[in-house]
Amino acid sequence: MKPWRQYLDEFKSFSERILSLEYAQALIHWDMNTGAPKKGMGEKAKMLGVLGGESVKLLTSPKMNELLEILEAHKNSLEPNDFHHVKHTRKKYDQMMKIPQKEYEEYLSLCAESNQVWEEAKTTSNFKLFSPYLKKIIETLRKFIIYRGYQSGNPYNTLLDDYEEGMTVEKLDLFFNTLRERIVPLVHKIREKSQPECSFLDESYPIVKQKEFSNFIAKHIGYDFDAGMIKESMHPFTLGFGPNDVRITTHYHEKNLMSAIFSTIHECGHAIYEQQISQNLDGTLLAEGTSMGIHESQSRMFENLFGRSLDFWKPIYSKLQESFSVLSNFSLEQFYKGINLTKPSLIRIEADELTYSLHVMVRYDLEKALFSGSCEVDDLPELWNKKMEEYLGVVPENDAVGVLQDVHWGSGLFGYFPSYALGNAYASQFFTAMNREFSVFDELEKGDFTKIKEWLKTHIHQYGKTKRPEELLIGATGEGLNPNYFAEYLENKFTSLYNL
Amino acid sequence: MKPWRQYLDEFKSFSERILSLEYAQALIHWDMNTGAPKKGMGEKAKMLGVLGGESVKLLTSPKMNELLEILEAHKNSLEPNDFHHVKHTRKKYDQMMKIPQKEYEEYLSLCAESNQVWEEAKTTSNFKLFSPYLKKIIETLRKFIIYRGYQSGNPYNTLLDDYEEGMTVEKLDLFFNTLRERIVPLVHKIREKSQPECSFLDESYPIVKQKEFSNFIAKHIGYDFDAGMIKESMHPFTLGFGPNDVRITTHYHEKNLMSAIFSTIHECGHAIYEQQISQNLDGTLLAEGTSMGIHESQSRMFENLFGRSLDFWKPIYSKLQESFSVLSNFSLEQFYKGINLTKPSLIRIEADELTYSLHVMVRYDLEKALFSGSCEVDDLPELWNKKMEEYLGVVPENDAVGVLQDVHWGSGLFGYFPSYALGNAYASQFFTAMNREFSVFDELEKGDFTKIKEWLKTHIHQYGKTKRPEELLIGATGEGLNPNYFAEYLENKFTSLYNL
Repeated sequence: MKPWRQYLDEFKSFSERILSLEYAQALIHWDMNTGAPKKGMGEKAKMLGVLGGESVKLLTSPKMNELLEILEAHKNSLEPNDFHHVKHTRKKYDQMMKIPQKEYEEYLSLCAESNQVWEEAKTTSNFKLFSPYLKKIIETLRKFIIYRGYQSGNPYNTLLDDYEEGMTVEKLDLFFNTLRERIVPLVHKIREKSQPECSFLDESYPIVKQKEFSNFIAKHIGYDFDAGMIKESMHPFTLGFGPNDVRITTHYHEKNLMSAIFSTIHECGHAIYEQQISQNLDGTLLAEGTSMGIHESQSRMFENLFGRSLDFWKPIYSKLQESFSVLSNFSLEQFYKGINLTKPSLIRIEADELTYSLHVMVRYDLEKALFSGSCEVDDLPELWNKKMEEYLGVVPENDAVGVLQDVHWGSGLFGYFPSYALGNAYASQFFTAMNREFSVFDELEKGDFTKIKEWLKTHIHQYGKTKRPEELLIGATGEGLNPNYFAEYLENKFTSLYNL
Repeated sequence: MKPWRQYLDEFKSFSERILSLEYAQALIHWDMNTGAPKKGMGEKAKMLGVLGGESVKLLTSPKMNELLEILEAHKNSLEPNDFHHVKHTRKKYDQMMKIPQKEYEEYLSLCAESNQVWEEAKTTSNFKLFSPYLKKIIETLRKFIIYRGYQSGNPYNTLLDDYEEGMTVEKLDLFFNTLRERIVPLVHKIREKSQPECSFLDESYPIVKQKEFSNFIAKHIGYDFDAGMIKESMHPFTLGFGPNDVRITTHYHEKNLMSAIFSTIHECGHAIYEQQISQNLDGTLLAEGTSMGIHESQSRMFENLFGRSLDFWKPIYSKLQESFSVLSNFSLEQFYKGINLTKPSLIRIEADELTYSLHVMVRYDLEKALFSGSCEVDDLPELWNKKMEEYLGVVPENDAVGVLQDVHWGSGLFGYFPSYALGNAYASQFFTAMNREFSVFDELEKGDFTKIKEWLKTHIHQYGKTKRPEELLIGATGEGLNPNYFAEYLENKFTSLYNL
């Protein structure tokens, strides 16, 4: 029999094969979204399917199981990163193996079909067209939850854990209750106040100048262009191939300069996270962000806590004015108020910093109810509208701008939404902890991101997937999820902005 | 036992897996050459290695051999395309299997190392640094030729066949003898004539205008932008993923407009070939050009026979003049003479249409001699210089611009060069055959590529890899390789251009 350390090498090269296949899929995805010729899209989609099959085949092979078993038997002798690598791979293996392959493939087909039906349903605002598919998806997910070893508590916890390891309904309820108690009243109070003058939001801004400024700001906040690039796509996204190649996309609309600027900053937040992952994890399955929520905390921190602060703009507002002469009629103070305009609206992806999490709360309430069995698919449109009125004070005129607005449910993504709101809460908590060590606003005012990036690297980024979200949070801030920081941040900021 | 047709389906899906892995490698290659971030290059190179290993593993698996054997036993019942698919795959399988894997891997490492040494040797013009590696490469290739079943004739034939199926020293000797007898004297005769006034070749041309014109000309000659795209890279190349996505790169140099224009036309020639492959072959290993030589015939036909003809420019020269005002001082006739300037030079990749094939002849003579044993590596620099003087009348002042100029030998590419010259010969032969059906120059003068593309599709492009080079040639022109067409074309063109 071979010495067990040889199995470690075998495991590593096996993982490298999986990783290469996954990176290849990511590159195809990148290509399809940044300009691949339209006639070739079918072939690319087929490639994605075939390569996806190859990587799953390797991950779920008996050989992989054998390697994992041997290494698990020696887990006390493993280096920490190897230990995490084995543990993470075992989790992925189990996730794949506990669901019969045939049922999983049927589920993927169902989601593909359902996604198409959702598109039509949204276009025609016809929820009844979509609901039979949604019912089937939920039924299947309930079955999968049982396969995966559900024993007690809310079955929704299993889904939450997929996107945010360790997250439960119990913790989220505490979080959202805080928002319900403190942010909902704040939103309603601001509705009665007058809005600042911010007509610059609707001006025209030449695209070529927007591009230049996006590149400038990405550089300003510390995005490393030698380990990434910026392209355009319909919906901005970040895509990483280990710490040395993390790409982002943004978008440019003539009439919406802020969309380009804040999309770029947001995606740079995601990207800087991955660019700062330890080089020791490069080439392993651990070289990515640990969870959806932590990832979102980094993008939101850059976008909102940094990017929508006054100090952030102090050193660069004149540069922005030089690029876009229309802004010379607006003071920095006016600009700051304009980019922080808050107003309840129907569409989540267009929501502002204050109201955004309430949109997520609507979805969380409904998802939780669906999986605990306290509501049915047919109840969703009515419930949706009721919650929107309660939290935001607005009611959709039809389901297209209501319950049908998001792509997620039609693609089987349940348990995913809460991480968007969690990101905000984590961000405030990290921000507060960072401020205990140095004044973040002072650094922003200097336009120097060195200390900030260093703090994030030391406490969060370097670890990649070797630490769970809660571990990171406790390590960096000294406590688990505490929604008060986020509530306090919003209260302070918007009370001052709107003179409450 | 399963009905044998089920094995055909299995074979097809097996091939699709190989193809997806190969396309993924091609996409990484594309990415690395069109802007991938520099810090990520190492990871990408590793991915290439891993995915290359995966595709070879599938190709050489016992399962593949089993499938091939079953289908070969039913070859008379196979549809023609399936028959070719099996045959082509068997050839690839055999090529891989006949060489012991370990020796092949050692050879790949040797080539990688040798390539680096070549770079240094070229920089310092030090052939002695490079020669030990070159000796090892040739020694290894000689051994591989024996593994691969060499029995008699010149062992070099085995290598020629890799790039141009069915090509032999016997056929190439006839071809190059014709060039030696008819083109070498022509080159020497022109050396005594005065050159046309063509100072526009050295003017400055704004890059942004060059890009616009390159896109225009690609469209003009029928490149389908819905099934491809144009980007920039250091060295222009074409990369296809089946007929629906064939991409090209070109390059732009401020002081060299012609380089951008003719690189674009050249690569479009390659790309139009692959874009016109039958959709029936899409998703199979047959959906690419049949050989190096045939591929080069298409690029050279577009670049030289079309692109450097007077009629080609008649409908678009005014457009070129509009884009670049400096050209308004030059008549179409002057422009035509300028783009056909011929002058013996030292560097193959910068050579003109007339002298280009003589550069290839130098390399052919040497490669043939190396593998027949009539010369040794140490003799190369001297022999090189002697041949250059004989064919072109110029002698390199050092080996950097002589025997060390090309990357090929250091990378183990022997038998590859002749296809560059063969492309020219094939092109003239196809061109003559096309002219029997309609006047090609009339179509060029109209600026209409419909008939031309249709002829090329019908006689060449559609077949992909289902026909061997010679089969295509005979099918399209009624005869095998006949170098007289090429010699005659050059004689006519340059006799007239230089008033001989």
